[in-house]
Amino acid sequence: MIAKYFAPLSAGAPGAFGLQDDVATLLLPEGQELVAKVDAIVEDVHFFRDDPADLIAKKALRVNLSDLAAKGAAPIGYLLSLSLAPWAGDDWVGEFARGLAEDQAQFGIHLLGGDTTATPGVLTVSITALGSIAAGKTIRRAGAQVGDLVFVTGSIGDAGAGLAVLKGEGGSLSKVDRAALIARYRVPEPRLAFGRLLPGFASASLDISDGLIADLGHIAEVSKVLIAVDAARIPLSSSLAAIWGKGMDAVVRAATAGDDYEIAFTAPPAARAAVGAAVRETGLPVTEIGVVGTGEGVVLLDNGKPVPVPHSGYTHF
Amino acid sequence: MIAKYFAPLSAGAPGAFGLQDDVATLLLPEGQELVAKVDAIVEDVHFFRDDPADLIAKKALRVNLSDLAAKGAAPIGYLLSLSLAPWAGDDWVGEFARGLAEDQAQFGIHLLGGDTTATPGVLTVSITALGSIAAGKTIRRAGAQVGDLVFVTGSIGDAGAGLAVLKGEGGSLSKVDRAALIARYRVPEPRLAFGRLLPGFASASLDISDGLIADLGHIAEVSKVLIAVDAARIPLSSSLAAIWGKGMDAVVRAATAGDDYEIAFTAPPAARAAVGAAVRETGLPVTEIGVVGTGEGVVLLDNGKPVPVPHSGYTHF
Repeated sequence: MIAKYFAPLSAGAPGAFGLQDDVATLLLPEGQELVAKVDAIVEDVHFFRDDPADLIAKKALRVNLSDLAAKGAAPIGYLLSLSLAPWAGDDWVGEFARGLAEDQAQFGIHLLGGDTTATPGVLTVSITALGSIAAGKTIRRAGAQVGDLVFVTGSIGDAGAGLAVLKGEGGSLSKVDRAALIARYRVPEPRLAFGRLLPGFASASLDISDGLIADLGHIAEVSKVLIAVDAARIPLSSSLAAIWGKGMDAVVRAATAGDDYEIAFTAPPAARAAVGAAVRETGLPVTEIGVVGTGEGVVLLDNGKPVPVPHSGYTHF
Repeated sequence: MIAKYFAPLSAGAPGAFGLQDDVATLLLPEGQELVAKVDAIVEDVHFFRDDPADLIAKKALRVNLSDLAAKGAAPIGYLLSLSLAPWAGDDWVGEFARGLAEDQAQFGIHLLGGDTTATPGVLTVSITALGSIAAGKTIRRAGAQVGDLVFVTGSIGDAGAGLAVLKGEGGSLSKVDRAALIARYRVPEPRLAFGRLLPGFASASLDISDGLIADLGHIAEVSKVLIAVDAARIPLSSSLAAIWGKGMDAVVRAATAGDDYEIAFTAPPAARAAVGAAVRETGLPVTEIGVVGTGEGVVLLDNGKPVPVPHSGYTHF
């Protein structure tokens, strides 16, 4: 199985040794630091057995690449730890590997090493993504300063809406909107091109996986600041508006849904021009949605008045 | 749970950011290459639910450190991907983390990052070990040359005998022998001190996990050589002799049992003195057990005559 499906994914990475050795090696350019991230996705928790195997592979890979992007790092390759449930046969593995191959080509990375084991439990895919960045330039959560602005890439809530569609909501949606939302749920888009420009202006950043409000809460917590978000500015796609509308309910749902894999970041006001230049260079829309102040937690404001946010386990008001 | 049990394991590693960020960073000394290895252990496949949680943690960590050792690398830290089954509660996680803490102190490494998720399946521990070595010095499987000698550290078969004891064999064994064999199965000893000296003399090496014969087969395959092992020279412990005897059956069983996590390596005859010096420096016994010749596969010899080896799925005769 390794020789047939996975060894080809290591072609082009000298330190992968064609997956014919016990370890992978990686020599970073001088002055670069390694950036590493591991994240697992689990059957019946993060995906379903019937999901297309190539998309499961892409999701497992992309949730990690998204972290690298949000930290300003460039991905190099990854290690795969695959626990195969009895139901996953040769065809499934072939489709899974095909998904990885497509993403490798898209993102210019390689499989560096891995481990495949049978499990009597559910199928689990754990990926360790490796990347690099100029030493000391990794953008942390703990850098937001009072007076900074808060930005977010792309649009918020689409993945959550896509999951809702898969669960039966939105029966009157157009085919195009259905497909767009489901795709956002199944195949996150790591914002790598934009991410590499972040070290030029961002004071703190992360990728949104728990939900916009919860993740901004993570920045607020370790930066020891208050983040105030203007609800009206949170960018919603037309597909999301088609299923949930544009009201405050839709905004709150979008901002707490999670799985966005957009980048939320803070930057000083003087960096607005640099943010604009990055938008023009990458073509990725970025929206200014709030400010960093004194205090703690995240507050969502509707015309200046705090809006109650449910599931606010990660936030403080 | 992360703050309580795992964040303390990251103390002392600046690039772990106290596990309060999305990634880990690592700056290697100039001229060093990264050496990375991922391996998962799965409940009911590699360990049992009733095994002590601290020993499960140590096994998960050590099987990876053993690979780094066999390649000549020094470990730096690791990423943990933990899929927690419903049966594993707070106490279990506490014991698991205690095991990691003990091994971190012993091996001078730190937890750099991780991911914890609930699983409806079996408990799975996937660890990515990161280490370093002078660039280009990683010892590969594909370096054995015709005329090289074959060496192995420590003793072979103890872990396999320990598993046999756990399954009910060896009822008449002494307590000491029982405990010694079970410990070899449950808690492998990565040969890190010896491993770091390997680049001085080894042409190829790996750690023995599948079994001595099978793993030498891996070296033979990628080095495109024949490896001939003298059965009488395979080092057996007195505990192993106490359960299986010293006959050819015991030797064959030991050499095919696996889970040894000793290092098997090849080196030219001129390196005998360097091997001896490494033995004196580390106190780890090393035994010369065979030679590298022209051909393919592994042959086990009893007074010069080939011995049939069962379960020879990985070997060729």
